[in-house]
Amino acid sequence: MEVTARAPGKIILSGEHAVVHGSTAVVASIDLYTFVSLRLSTSENDCTLRLLLKDVGLELSWDVGKIKAALPESDGFDSSTPTTCTREFSEAISALVAEQNIPEAKIGPAGISAFLWLYTSIRGFEPATVVVKSELPLGSGLGSSAALSVALAAALLASLSPGSLDSSKQGWLDFEDDKLDLLNRWAFEGEKILHGKPSGIDNTVSTYGSIIEFKSGNLTMIKSNLPLKMLITNTKVERNTKALVAGVSERTLRHPEAMASVFRAMDSISTEFSMLIQSPATDELAITENEKKIAELMEMNQGLLQCLGVSHAVIETVLRTTLKYKLTSKLTGAGAGGCVLTLLPSLLSGTLVDKVIAELESCGFQCLIAGIGGKGAQVSFISTS
Amino acid sequence: MEVTARAPGKIILSGEHAVVHGSTAVVASIDLYTFVSLRLSTSENDCTLRLLLKDVGLELSWDVGKIKAALPESDGFDSSTPTTCTREFSEAISALVAEQNIPEAKIGPAGISAFLWLYTSIRGFEPATVVVKSELPLGSGLGSSAALSVALAAALLASLSPGSLDSSKQGWLDFEDDKLDLLNRWAFEGEKILHGKPSGIDNTVSTYGSIIEFKSGNLTMIKSNLPLKMLITNTKVERNTKALVAGVSERTLRHPEAMASVFRAMDSISTEFSMLIQSPATDELAITENEKKIAELMEMNQGLLQCLGVSHAVIETVLRTTLKYKLTSKLTGAGAGGCVLTLLPSLLSGTLVDKVIAELESCGFQCLIAGIGGKGAQVSFISTS
Repeated sequence: MEVTARAPGKIILSGEHAVVHGSTAVVASIDLYTFVSLRLSTSENDCTLRLLLKDVGLELSWDVGKIKAALPESDGFDSSTPTTCTREFSEAISALVAEQNIPEAKIGPAGISAFLWLYTSIRGFEPATVVVKSELPLGSGLGSSAALSVALAAALLASLSPGSLDSSKQGWLDFEDDKLDLLNRWAFEGEKILHGKPSGIDNTVSTYGSIIEFKSGNLTMIKSNLPLKMLITNTKVERNTKALVAGVSERTLRHPEAMASVFRAMDSISTEFSMLIQSPATDELAITENEKKIAELMEMNQGLLQCLGVSHAVIETVLRTTLKYKLTSKLTGAGAGGCVLTLLPSLLSGTLVDKVIAELESCGFQCLIAGIGGKGAQVSFISTS
Repeated sequence: MEVTARAPGKIILSGEHAVVHGSTAVVASIDLYTFVSLRLSTSENDCTLRLLLKDVGLELSWDVGKIKAALPESDGFDSSTPTTCTREFSEAISALVAEQNIPEAKIGPAGISAFLWLYTSIRGFEPATVVVKSELPLGSGLGSSAALSVALAAALLASLSPGSLDSSKQGWLDFEDDKLDLLNRWAFEGEKILHGKPSGIDNTVSTYGSIIEFKSGNLTMIKSNLPLKMLITNTKVERNTKALVAGVSERTLRHPEAMASVFRAMDSISTEFSMLIQSPATDELAITENEKKIAELMEMNQGLLQCLGVSHAVIETVLRTTLKYKLTSKLTGAGAGGCVLTLLPSLLSGTLVDKVIAELESCGFQCLIAGIGGKGAQVSFISTS
């Protein structure tokens, strides 16, 4: 039996940076996924755990006996109780990763460590082949690492108790709510290895899908009544998120009053954004009206982000290009590169979208089209017997 | 005797648009002037009032007897008591202007009407030649019309009582304070003819010079301790100020909370800007520090103006060009074209300034360099006897 899980990426629709200073952020899943397939070994002679990272063309393998020997003794594994990787485990896992001599440019060792931790914690030392593929560009603020943690935990948990899912059904199956909670907590443990101190937003959005309002550490799931579509332009300019967040904090220290008002404005924009998404829009006219308001909020939010000093010449290039086609854009995430969102109104012609994309791609950018606020983690079974 | 008056233009350093919604604006005079020279006729046979507008190459003339006959009877003129042009006078003056068949592209008839009103109100029906020249581009938000009203009223008042000024001195002479007040009130009457409902900011800055804080109709003169220099880029893109102001108001109705916070942020930026200008900066290091803070406030203000929706592709072009040279810019005035300010730090090399200007001018823009917060209206006498 092979189980494949998929988990979506995310975008910040509104409130990035300001969220660090107490404002509301609105974060949504996108219908671009990371896929993790797990096939347990059926041959008794096979003692290998294989990890195939399709996107970077990397194949790693370990002897499960050697993994067991390398890791500290533990009281046994309990997949129903997510635990944090201890320093002792972390060091042992790092040594197992280091053995593989992974070319540095291909993938960070933290991703492999997170894999080994989640795999051994949930499935122990069973030989298997795990294949990872993703539609999400890595490290560009679209939640690729959380999607990996979620999809991996989803595949592992689903393989443990396939009975809880109706595996006779074709296509993508939803998890039950309690399983989603468990999955989210495991994915958060993976994120800790990947990011140190994750906010938990990315794995939560990837697990549950939909749209989440985040304020002062509190998450509220909201239901979208507006089928939004965004063009995501990956500028491929790498940025240092920590330095950008620190830069905003320093500006806040230099101009406390002005910045407090800017954060309040961003909070209002997020709240309004969230209300617009939830408000029932039944006919085309109402949808178009709400899309116009959302475009205006995006324009305002972009201005405020420029006020925080986190824009970048390459982001302005995307804004200028999409504005030529009367489309509104804003940066998403940390800024200073990364990705830019452009609202694609529901009545926009496909020809125009093609033109915008062609022009953006001619600048060397990568363009993705994403539906907003869809499903979270799901699994699919293929019987290999 | 010939008297020449000069009156400076203005720039809005901070708070445009937000000032309409109760925030503080900071407005400064610039050392770019409109000059008005007045030479009273010495020949008894000359009954002509001549107006030479050098910048548009226009020469107008009226027989003073005809002017007198055309205007309604009045109780005589009192230059010490500025009065508002009545509808009756306005119609009579408009007829006198219409007679001249001025090519429409050259200058609006309101400017000529303001001239005739100020001239006849202050000097009556004396034959004379009035020559107007300006360093200020017309209608681009640099206060060219107020500078015309102020320089004209200054020349007229100075010619009436040259004794109150030490006319034996060479160069530009200051008015006494009470004369400045009178001058400002006359200029305001001229502005009313030119603009309908002027705020009074432009004529006040042009009269008194220096820097003025404006909030909810109250003007406060502030003393600059920082010798600021700005590059002013005139994009030559004409804009409709009324429509832009209305657009911001409509956005405010649609998003009242967010916009209120944006206006508060702009108020804080203006207040901080004003404090920085006034704070004593005695050495180069302190000046450089304050210039950095001012650049940051300008960047923030520009972001907020983009949030209001009053930027424009052509403004972004100026921002992008100056940013290449690590210089900070913001639009000034109504936006959507008009002029853009770029801070020129005191230690900036002339070569770099030349390069920026060359690049901006190659885009078809007009570049002016201006010192900020200098003298207001002044006069100079040339004895022609």
